[in-house]
Parts: sequence; C-alpha cells; structure tokens
Amino acid sequence: MTFSQKVSAAVRAKKSPVVVGIDPRFALIPESLRAGVVEGDWQGMARVYQDFSCKILDIVAPYAPCVKPQLAFFEMLGPHGMFALANVIEHARSLNLVVILDGKRNDIGSTAEGYAAAYLGERSPWRGDALTINPYLGDDSLAPFVKTAEDCGAGIFVLVKTSNPGGGMLQDLEANGKTIYQHSADWVESAAAKFANLRGDQYGAVGAVVGATYPEQLAHLRTRMPHAWILVPGFGAQGGGVKDVLPAFDDQGLGALINNSRGIIFSYIRPEMKERYSENEWEAAVEDAARTMRELFIDVVK
Amino acid sequence: MTFSQKVSAAVRAKKSPVVVGIDPRFALIPESLRAGVVEGDWQGMARVYQDFSCKILDIVAPYAPCVKPQLAFFEMLGPHGMFALANVIEHARSLNLVVILDGKRNDIGSTAEGYAAAYLGERSPWRGDALTINPYLGDDSLAPFVKTAEDCGAGIFVLVKTSNPGGGMLQDLEANGKTIYQHSADWVESAAAKFANLRGDQYGAVGAVVGATYPEQLAHLRTRMPHAWILVPGFGAQGGGVKDVLPAFDDQGLGALINNSRGIIFSYIRPEMKERYSENEWEAAVEDAARTMRELFIDVVK
Repeated sequence: MTFSQKVSAAVRAKKSPVVVGIDPRFALIPESLRAGVVEGDWQGMARVYQDFSCKILDIVAPYAPCVKPQLAFFEMLGPHGMFALANVIEHARSLNLVVILDGKRNDIGSTAEGYAAAYLGERSPWRGDALTINPYLGDDSLAPFVKTAEDCGAGIFVLVKTSNPGGGMLQDLEANGKTIYQHSADWVESAAAKFANLRGDQYGAVGAVVGATYPEQLAHLRTRMPHAWILVPGFGAQGGGVKDVLPAFDDQGLGALINNSRGIIFSYIRPEMKERYSENEWEAAVEDAARTMRELFIDVVK
Repeated sequence: MTFSQKVSAAVRAKKSPVVVGIDPRFALIPESLRAGVVEGDWQGMARVYQDFSCKILDIVAPYAPCVKPQLAFFEMLGPHGMFALANVIEHARSLNLVVILDGKRNDIGSTAEGYAAAYLGERSPWRGDALTINPYLGDDSLAPFVKTAEDCGAGIFVLVKTSNPGGGMLQDLEANGKTIYQHSADWVESAAAKFANLRGDQYGAVGAVVGATYPEQLAHLRTRMPHAWILVPGFGAQGGGVKDVLPAFDDQGLGALINNSRGIIFSYIRPEMKERYSENEWEAAVEDAARTMRELFIDVVK
C-alpha cells in the first residue's frame, strides 16, 4: 500500500484530517505523571515523556488518523529520550496511527540515504510512516528520501511555506518570476505527480508542509500541487483557524492533514478547560479537545 | 571563552585547520572490529561504531583540532546508536577536541530552542561545541540557536553553499540582485559581526558551511563574511583540493576549517594505502592520512 492510500484510508475511516503533534514539555505535563522526577534526570524525564505520550496516543486514537512526534523534544533528553521516542513510535503503530516524524532532516548523498533509512526504511529501528524534510540542499539531497519513501510505502513532507513569521526571509524571495517557496512547491508537485501517475493514484509519496498562518498562500499552493498531500501546522495555538485551512482540502476532503500540538496535548492548561476539568481530569480535557477538533472538520471528509 | 577563541586556540596549538568527519559505515569498518556482529543487530553495531569512532579520535587527536560526528549514521542504529554518539562526544571532549555536531537541524520557535538546548546547551546530555543548521526556516528559527551558542560559548554553522551538485536548485537562484546563498551569507555575516564586535573578537559565534567543490564562491564568500568561521566540506573524496580551499583562510591561517571524512577514517580502503598497510594496520593508515592532511596546510596557520 502506498503512503497516500494508507493516509486516505485512515482519514476516511475516522472521518478526520486531524494530526496530533506529540511535543512533550516537562513543565507542562500533569504533576501526577512527574512525581519524583526533576529536570536534568534524563532517564526519569524520558520515562515521563513516554508515559505521557503513550497516554495521549490512547486518548486521541479514535479522533485522529495521524500523530506527529516532534523529534527535538525527545532529543533534548539525550539517548534516554531517543529510547522513549522509539517506544512512542511503536505504541502509535500498534494503535494503527499513521506516524509522521517531525525531524526536518536533510543532508547530501549517502548521509541523506542514512536519514531516510533511519526513519523510513523497512528495517529502521524506529520506523515512521513519514518524515518532514528541508529542501535547502536541493534535488539530489531530496532524491534518496523520495526513493526510500516510494520503495517502503512511506511518505515525506517537504518544507514549502512554514508557519513562522520569519519564514519569509528566504521562502518569500522572488527568483525567475516565482518565490522560493513556489520553487520548492513545483519540485514537490513534480515528484508527487510522477509517482501518483505511475501508481494510478491521486496523490504521490511526496507532500508539502504549508502553514495555516498563511491562508492565501495555502489556497494557492493547493492548486499548484494537485498531487501532494499538504501537512498544515500552525492551526490553533499559532493562530490558524478552520476557514484558513479549508482551501487545503480537495472536494473529497482529502489532500490535507491539519496538525494541532499544544491545543490538544496541553489542552488542560487552557483557561476555558480549567473551568470544566480539575487537574486530575487532564485526560478528559485532552479527549474533549481532540473530539472537538475532529468535529470542526466532520463535514469536510466525504 | 567564546567558540571562536576556542577554535582559534586549538587550530594554533596543533598548527592545523583539519576537521575529521566521523561518519561510521558498518561495511567499511575493519573486520576485526566487526567480529560477531551482523547488520540489524543495532546494539552490537552501536558498540562497533563507538569502538571504531573512539579509536579514530585517539589516532587523529594530535593532527586535528576538531572532529565532526555525522548524526545521521548514529541515528540509523536507533536509540542504541544515540548512546554510542553520546559516548563518542564525551570521548572527544576528554581529548580536548572541538566537537562540531553535523545534524543540519532547524525548526521554529520553541522547537528550535529545543534543538539548541539538546546539542549546545550547558546542561545538554550530549553537548557539542557547535552544530550545523539549515536556514530555510528564516531568521526567527535561527535566533534561538544564536542565543544559545553565544550564551554557552558554542557556535553554529549555517548552510550557505553546500558541496553537492544539486545544491544550486534553491541556493543559486537570484533574488533582489543576489543569490539565495548570498542572502544566507549576509544573514550569517550580520549575526557574526554583531557578536564579534561586542566581544572585540575577529570572528563571531555564527559560521557558515561552504563546500570546497565551489572554489570561486568560497573565495567570494570569505570576503563577504569577514566575521564568520567557514566550515568547508567536500575536500578529498568529493573532489576539492588544497588550492581550492586556500582562499577560505584569513592571513593568519584562521577563519576556515577543512573537513575530511572518508579520506581519513576509511583511508585504509584507498588503493595506494592498501599497498603500504596490511588490513590489520588500519590504524597506521588512518594516522598516515591525518598527518598527511595536516602537512598540506602546515604553512597556512601562522
């Protein structure tokens, strides 16, 4: 099964385009899970991250087809954090969640092959279904990721237009009549279309990251990349709303995955949730947030 | 001590601008170190990578002020590989080698802070002296790395013009009268100059990656970024020679660090070395290659 077929089936089965970002931060995790562990105790913190993340996965699994562990937060704990990450990935796969690893990796030649094998390969020790990739190093750096993804039924999401205010420094510069992010987008579409046509699919194995915080560009990029799944960060805490991201979907409600991290996994910290749930009801608050987000998109997926 | 002061002192002490890239690949490691371990035995392979890398560090320490572990190859082995990486970093630090972590990381906001803390922070569980960074996400993604580096006596090397043939896809595009890599370079110079001026140093904490395979651009970028250390990959196996990289140095022989990975750590595989060293003399071949590379630059460092 291709990555696109896997994602389409998961989105349809749950009638939900929701991606839950797994971004553990020690100070925000419920105190009951942190008991006896202090910052700097990497092994203890890694256990806390793993317990917290796996509980989140159990809670959100009915509402979200995909989860997106943010590698940086696990790397902050050193090697112990990486064991926790491996266990979180394994738990997500056991729940049939599509695992998008947010590592924003890239390098050249055999090193790019190394990253691709590390996170997407069939024999990977911590295999994801997809990996986020940075395009600055150019097409020959992207090729090994495309090959591994296509060979292994995995996907990649190439950074095109990121959600942060400073993303325009290079991405918005205009060269040869189009912006740098349009150059990235055209590469994505070309790679995606080639594989999609080969397999008779609507979408390829190469997708794009486009932030919800730039709704006009998002609408434009949907049209510009008809064969690419778009992973949309920036929804919720960063300011993107439902109407901002609707243009990212095709008429079947496919083609876009909407990520929310803090708004779901740390929902119990939001003032309006604190009114409704006590501290030890944090799991109910997470479920409420995941269910509510799915409901926002319930009419989108056909 | 600032990163620049640390690097300058190390380069002068060893009269060498050599960086040895630590890029372990299982099939190329001497058989004697691989005995009893097969591919896919991640724990066994991690032990092999650690033993091999630490031996390399011991051998090259007299000739090279810096080493550059390539994170991808350790990540390929999963969490066990990351423990090996941590031990390699610790061993390099115990030998007073400047450790440049080649991770080409980046992300936005608090995630960028996470990566910076993970690899450069004072309380990092696997602390390097510097980290390579990708600029595609723009200035606000770079800022947390700059801050952590400056606060912790560490450095960052931002990808400007990479050594691979396809690097030009985005980097060579021209916008507002300059190429994308020149835009990146100007950001690097601005950040580097600010800190250098503040500290009364010649160089700042922000450096650049510029490939030896583009000697004209390298010479140009030396002039364009007078306050930035330049990390130069692509020497040796990728085709760059001594005369290609000489323009990267200032008149004191500082300002440039020349990386060689395969050409040193797997030197015993090169045909001309095979004539001189038997398989069990691989350590002598590595020492020969490191010494020879240092000698190529012996008149450069004043």
